[in-house]
Amino acid sequence: MLESSAKDFVTALSSKEPIPGGGGASAYVGSIGMALGVMVGNLTVGKKKYADVEDDVKALMEKGERIIERFQALVAEDAEAFYPLSQAYGLPKNTEEEIKIKEETLQKALVKATLVPLEIARCCAEGIDLQEEMAQKGTRIAISDVGVGVIFLKAALEGAKLNVFINTKIMKDQDLKLKIESELNALCTTYTAKTDRIYAEVQNSITGD
Amino acid sequence: MLESSAKDFVTALSSKEPIPGGGGASAYVGSIGMALGVMVGNLTVGKKKYADVEDDVKALMEKGERIIERFQALVAEDAEAFYPLSQAYGLPKNTEEEIKIKEETLQKALVKATLVPLEIARCCAEGIDLQEEMAQKGTRIAISDVGVGVIFLKAALEGAKLNVFINTKIMKDQDLKLKIESELNALCTTYTAKTDRIYAEVQNSITGD
Repeated sequence: MLESSAKDFVTALSSKEPIPGGGGASAYVGSIGMALGVMVGNLTVGKKKYADVEDDVKALMEKGERIIERFQALVAEDAEAFYPLSQAYGLPKNTEEEIKIKEETLQKALVKATLVPLEIARCCAEGIDLQEEMAQKGTRIAISDVGVGVIFLKAALEGAKLNVFINTKIMKDQDLKLKIESELNALCTTYTAKTDRIYAEVQNSITGD
Repeated sequence: MLESSAKDFVTALSSKEPIPGGGGASAYVGSIGMALGVMVGNLTVGKKKYADVEDDVKALMEKGERIIERFQALVAEDAEAFYPLSQAYGLPKNTEEEIKIKEETLQKALVKATLVPLEIARCCAEGIDLQEEMAQKGTRIAISDVGVGVIFLKAALEGAKLNVFINTKIMKDQDLKLKIESELNALCTTYTAKTDRIYAEVQNSITGD
């Protein structure tokens, strides 16, 4: 899906086709946020001023590249998991038998379609941790890009959250629903606070407040 | 720049090349956020249940398409405005004359490079207003996508903000600096609050809180 042009991705997103949707868009925005962190790394390495943190920055960049790859794989995984769910929503429910089949198909598809945005949220958390360290060690001339990157990762996390909750809302398996929602709520509480702190620090370092 | 693949855009962003950078990424994420609103419109029109708001939704979609086009043009405009600034930063400053030339070139490039992310911020505000109406009138089955879309537009606004401030920080023209910063601060105050309200409403409508 990401092989088509950046412009076509947006056009496909705006269409009524079920994929890509909000989940895939969240994973893609996550990759954009992480790429800005890697960019700051690329602007840092090789500079005499940052020689003492160069190894750390290189390690962050390698980890960042892996997170970008993971996000991009999740765009495809979200499409694969969401498509069967969108089809299940369209199944007929005229007879008792049809209602039963629809419900079973829906619940099965629902679990897969929920675990993908949960994984997107986990990747966002990893990305935000990485940006926190990049904000400390990366070149000052590109500090605004760490701020932009971390805010995109937070937005991707909040986007993934809605895509989880719209599914868990109708999930029959109450144990799984509770487990997923607990993990996600904990991630969101921790990482929105962390992002807001990093963004405020970046903004203060720019404006000198 | 958006003609290359969605994957290549992320790769280009992560490189140390000056463009695309945080400003262009903000405009692109804005277009993704707006596309989700248009998608919700596409899922609404033609449905009997929403016949009474169909004309309004169609008007929102048309406006949304224009905002997407504007965002995508701003990706290119940001690159055009930022490149001369990145070159100006690299000018020598060994003599009095060189220092004078560098400062003049820098200040001239700075104004253009600041007005583009300011325009991105204005587009985000328009997009958020549009999503507010889509949250009221769009199909309930895709309500999560309005929430994701609006949060991406807010992230793009906050990204654009940092890209303005990193420039106004060193802007010599104090009148212009004050004018730009005042407009931007007002936009951010109004529209982050509005976004948070829309996101919370969407989340509550999903979780039933």
